[in-house]
Parts: sequence; structure tokens; C-alpha cells
Amino acid sequence: MPTTKGKRSEPYNTSQRKAHAVDPDIKAANRKRLKRIEGQIRGVQKMVDDDRYCADILVQLAAVHEALRAVGRELMRNHLKHCATHALGQGGDDARQMCDELIDLMYKNAR
Amino acid sequence: MPTTKGKRSEPYNTSQRKAHAVDPDIKAANRKRLKRIEGQIRGVQKMVDDDRYCADILVQLAAVHEALRAVGRELMRNHLKHCATHALGQGGDDARQMCDELIDLMYKNAR
Amino acid sequence: MPTTKGKRSEPYNTSQRKAHAVDPDIKAANRKRLKRIEGQIRGVQKMVDDDRYCADILVQLAAVHEALRAVGRELMRNHLKHCATHALGQGGDDARQMCDELIDLMYKNAR
Amino acid sequence: MPTTKGKRSEPYNTSQRKAHAVDPDIKAANRKRLKRIEGQIRGVQKMVDDDRYCADILVQLAAVHEALRAVGRELMRNHLKHCATHALGQGGDDARQMCDELIDLMYKNAR
Repeated sequence: MPTTKGKRSEPYNTSQRKAHAVDPDIKAANRKRLKRIEGQIRGVQKMVDDDRYCADILVQLAAVHEALRAVGRELMRNHLKHCATHALGQGGDDARQMCDELIDLMYKNAR
Repeated sequence: MPTTKGKRSEPYNTSQRKAHAVDPDIKAANRKRLKRIEGQIRGVQKMVDDDRYCADILVQLAAVHEALRAVGRELMRNHLKHCATHALGQGGDDARQMCDELIDLMYKNAR
Repeated sequence: MPTTKGKRSEPYNTSQRKAHAVDPDIKAANRKRLKRIEGQIRGVQKMVDDDRYCADILVQLAAVHEALRAVGRELMRNHLKHCATHALGQGGDDARQMCDELIDLMYKNAR
Repeated sequence: MPTTKGKRSEPYNTSQRKAHAVDPDIKAANRKRLKRIEGQIRGVQKMVDDDRYCADILVQLAAVHEALRAVGRELMRNHLKHCATHALGQGGDDARQMCDELIDLMYKNAR
């Protein structure tokens, strides 16, 4: 889908790795959250168009960050439950790699 | 516009305060960024739909957070330059209130 | 040691759970980092005592946050490698609890 | 004081800029907080020495981050009230520089 491609090539187009398993309730909740976040972004766009008070826009941006963090939390839960548990259980290089990946993810996403 | 309204009434619908002034280049850059972020959100939705590897989705979410922070930074710049400078210059209660507001904004948005 | 006790009773005094295992190099590096952080804190105290320029103190505080994050990262690495892998491997309630605990830790510590 | 010097030369030794003014109550509260944080750091050192459960140490680290943020908040309040208001009121290059400095500080410290 062309609209999702930025000028800088996005990682989400280059690889197509699949999740080991996805909990249907996590997936459903995240789809709903992301739809809502899309609406929030359009709301922020409208505020910018209307020259609304910067502090009021910033409060909305904080709400979007919070909503995105909720999505991230559930993705991380699914990741730990299915993908990470599998790799950590293997031991050896797989487990080591998974540890490194998890730590990177945490420190990039949990803010 | 109905799509921007959440079920919980959003602050951006309740007040209509305007910015003291908006730099046209900040406004243009933020509109562009927000359009792009909307596309990124749709990209994340597609990844969730496709049961993509959770860690790959989380990396995309981190990119969205980063892009939102860039918007927030410029809004804060505009806010400091126009709205905050005005209020701080007044002294007294106006200045005190602006200080409190700025600190709240920082600690909510700068993450 | 009395100086480590705050007026509000600290969790680190109430429980005495041990790590499953600690990598000696992680332990040594963290002890060194924490010694250095203690010195940084005293440096910040001195800056406050001397009425130093607030922005300069804030830059130092940011350095302390960064140094603490480095400690947290290595603790998390040890935790994933030893404690978490063990619990996740068990499956069932133990694994579920570990997932919840990990997610809480990430979202509290990784900022 | 030698213990505050790291091997990498720290900015807090290179410049000696003073605050425009410091509220005595902010200063007193921050000194108290920093004393307490020093104790917390020593508590964390002891936990590391004792091979305490990593997750318990991480919870303590989160408490230290929180306590440092409280110091940062008050420093920022003092900065806005005294130093920043002064510079922003001047207009021109001084105001512009102060805006840039404030935004950098926010995005470095408010996490």
C-alpha cells in the first residue's frame, strides 16, 4: 500500500517475518486502538490547521503517545508470551540474540 | 468532523483557544509530518492485520513516537517563542501560571 | 546501613529475594557504574549549593539518568538471561506472571 | 572535590555560570532530595553486592529516576521563573537562544 511508504525506505516493507502466534484478543484490541489513534492524529492535524493554542495541541500529542504505548505494551506481551519464550527456551545463540533484541526493544519503545 | 471524536470526549473539542501567532514554516512542517505519521499508523495497522513479527511492529511504533516528538518539539518552540514569552513578560499571576503550564507540558510530552 | 533508609520504608528493605544467577562481569560493571553515579550525585549537590546556572545542573541530571539507564539495561539483561528464561520456560502461571512482571519493569524503567 | 570528577571531563567542571536567582525553598528542597537520592544509590549498590533479585533492583532504579525527575522539575521551575523569563523578555538573539536551550533541556531531561 503506497501511502504507508515514506521517502526513507521503512523497515516494515523490507522484511515479512511473522509472529509465532497472536492472541486474537490482543490483535482485536490493537486494531481498535490503532483506528482510534488514526482519528486522534487527524484531530491533531485539524488543530494545527486551525492555529489552535500550542499547549492544547501538545496535550493531545501526549494522549497519542499514551495510546501508542498501550499498543506497544500488548505487542510486547504477545511477543514475550509466544516469540520470546520460544527463543529463550532454546538456549544458546538463539536465546542470547533474543535477550539482546528484547533489551533494544524495551529501551526504544517503553518511553 | 466525526472521525476525530473519541467516545471519551476529547479536550480538543471542548476549548477553542488560539495560538498567539504561528510561524508559517513550523505550521507547514508539522502538517507534512502529521500526514506522514497518519501513513505510518496505517502501516502499523497493516502489520497487525498481517500478524507480522511483534518486534518488527514495535520498531515501527518507536519510529512513530519519534516522529510525534518532532512535531511536539516544534509546537513547543512556537509556544515558547510566541505564547509563553508574552505571558512570562507580563509577570505576576500570568507568568506563574505559564511556568506551571510549561513544566506540566514538558513532563507530559518530552518523553 | 541507616543512610540508605528513607522515611518512607523502601521496598529494598522488605524483601530479600535473590537473583537466580549473576554474571560476574555484569555485577562488576554495575558496581563501578553505581560508584560513579554516587559521585555524579554529589557533583549535582555541589552545583545546587553553589547556585549554579539551572540549565547546567539539568544537563548533569540528564547524564545521571543516562548512567542509571545503563545500569538498568545490564540488570535487565541478567534478569532475562537467568531469572526470566527460567520462569518463561516453566510455562503456565509462572510464565504468565513473569510476562506481566517484565512488562511492568520495562514500562517503569526504560524511560 | 575529586570524587565528583569522572575520567571523561564533566561539563560541571568547565563552566561556572550562576543562576540569575534561586528561590530558597526550591534550593532547600532540592538539597534534601539529593541527599536522599545519594542514599538510594547506596541502597542500590548494596542490592547489587548482595546479588538481590534483578527485578527488585530495577524497581529501586525506577524510584531513583522518579526522584531525580522531581529535582529536575524544580530546577526547571526556577530556570523558567528567573533565568528564562529574563532572556525571553529581551527578545532578539537572546530570546531565540533561550528558546533553543529550553527545548533541548526539555527533551533531554523530562523523560
